[in-house]
Amino acid sequence: MAKENKPLLLLTNDDGIQALGLTNLIEAIRPLGEIVVVAPDVPRSGMSSAISTVNPLRATLLKKEEDLTVYSCTGTPVDCVKLGLNKLLDRKPDLLLSGINHGSNAAVCIIYSGTIGAVFEGCIAGIPSVGVSLTDHSLRADFTQAVKYGKQIVEKVLETGLPEGVCLNLNVPNIPNVKGLKVCSQTKGLWIKEFIEMKDPVGRTAYWLTGEFLNQEPENKLSDEWALGQGYAALVPLRIDMTDYFFIEKIKDWEK
Amino acid sequence: MAKENKPLLLLTNDDGIQALGLTNLIEAIRPLGEIVVVAPDVPRSGMSSAISTVNPLRATLLKKEEDLTVYSCTGTPVDCVKLGLNKLLDRKPDLLLSGINHGSNAAVCIIYSGTIGAVFEGCIAGIPSVGVSLTDHSLRADFTQAVKYGKQIVEKVLETGLPEGVCLNLNVPNIPNVKGLKVCSQTKGLWIKEFIEMKDPVGRTAYWLTGEFLNQEPENKLSDEWALGQGYAALVPLRIDMTDYFFIEKIKDWEK
Repeated sequence: MAKENKPLLLLTNDDGIQALGLTNLIEAIRPLGEIVVVAPDVPRSGMSSAISTVNPLRATLLKKEEDLTVYSCTGTPVDCVKLGLNKLLDRKPDLLLSGINHGSNAAVCIIYSGTIGAVFEGCIAGIPSVGVSLTDHSLRADFTQAVKYGKQIVEKVLETGLPEGVCLNLNVPNIPNVKGLKVCSQTKGLWIKEFIEMKDPVGRTAYWLTGEFLNQEPENKLSDEWALGQGYAALVPLRIDMTDYFFIEKIKDWEK
Repeated sequence: MAKENKPLLLLTNDDGIQALGLTNLIEAIRPLGEIVVVAPDVPRSGMSSAISTVNPLRATLLKKEEDLTVYSCTGTPVDCVKLGLNKLLDRKPDLLLSGINHGSNAAVCIIYSGTIGAVFEGCIAGIPSVGVSLTDHSLRADFTQAVKYGKQIVEKVLETGLPEGVCLNLNVPNIPNVKGLKVCSQTKGLWIKEFIEMKDPVGRTAYWLTGEFLNQEPENKLSDEWALGQGYAALVPLRIDMTDYFFIEKIKDWEK
């Protein structure tokens, strides 16, 4: 296949350039097109859609092989996407892929996730964008199932595209035999008991973020947490227009 | 009014505890209830819904007067809200208020904004939450109009509440005579030409984030950018469930 006919895939993540989830993903999708990776130089989890407004970014070319170019970047996941699209790529990519994240990005975690921040950024730029996460935080997790389902979704999206303003969030459970794929909604829930309070070495109070996830709709069989709990991979379509059009009508009479 | 009958209002921002927008807001809404401020110790713009996953947080009590308590916090805007709700407040607040931001948070800026990150966090926690921004970045901006419209919305929300999962984003134009309030949608658009490339003192390439906003629907009279351009304050209801339910139906056949 001539280079110009191959799809261009931009890859990033929030666990950093050395994360096993990313290297597994690169390996799996390499046959599908030309790959450019722009990923944070160190782990930057929980960065949401944060951007670097104060300090400049730097990019380092780590690898340049046929159909595989790898950069590390000093910024957040969204910075990586912006720098890739604005400065490092020679054309608009056909797909943006973020992950495979070490840990779940189901339910409300999409709000905090740097992995999903990068996906939103691709979507804003008009690129079909997919985030893939495995529900296992360990550095040495087994990504076999996440790779399998992630690759299926990538192939599907390369074939069909995605509507403007819609992106995909795939979570794969950490079990050897995933039962199949379910198309889901974002589970309603929140984190509670979020801090451990302790004293630092000079006696000042310090608060460390922790927490338990409280599922507020455990019986909702459309929700991603339900699907994951049943052993399915959960695919949630997300939209970047967060307007509540229904509520606009409710408060029209606030206008004056 | 007895203390227990007064509404409790949690305030934060992303421009930091010393920002003029915050001090103006505190002054304006102080008569409305008991105020607790938990704001970043330094400016933390562009932090979106980022959370501190590596380092512990610290809070410093700066002021304790009747009905006004002020803390600074070493974290992001979302960290401030989490710490307030989990550790610093003695009861659940009746309203969360974020701002007044120095600069617009209309259109796609809600994705990157720490101001709006804090609003989402309040909404996730089940608190009626409102973000207020003025379309003027200057440190010494005139907040008169933003205070006026912000206070109106706060009074309205204290009176009527908000539905679960819905929060409000108010942007006020930087003009002396704002024409009125419009209830709007999030304008479709994106930032382009996002980096200035230069050499640092040791000759390495550095990329500084900048950019121009490209409005992709300049004729949409429901959009917040349109209302602001016409001299109106723009109020957009946002939902934290980002699921695209319409597209779920379209890809049901991807299940297997």
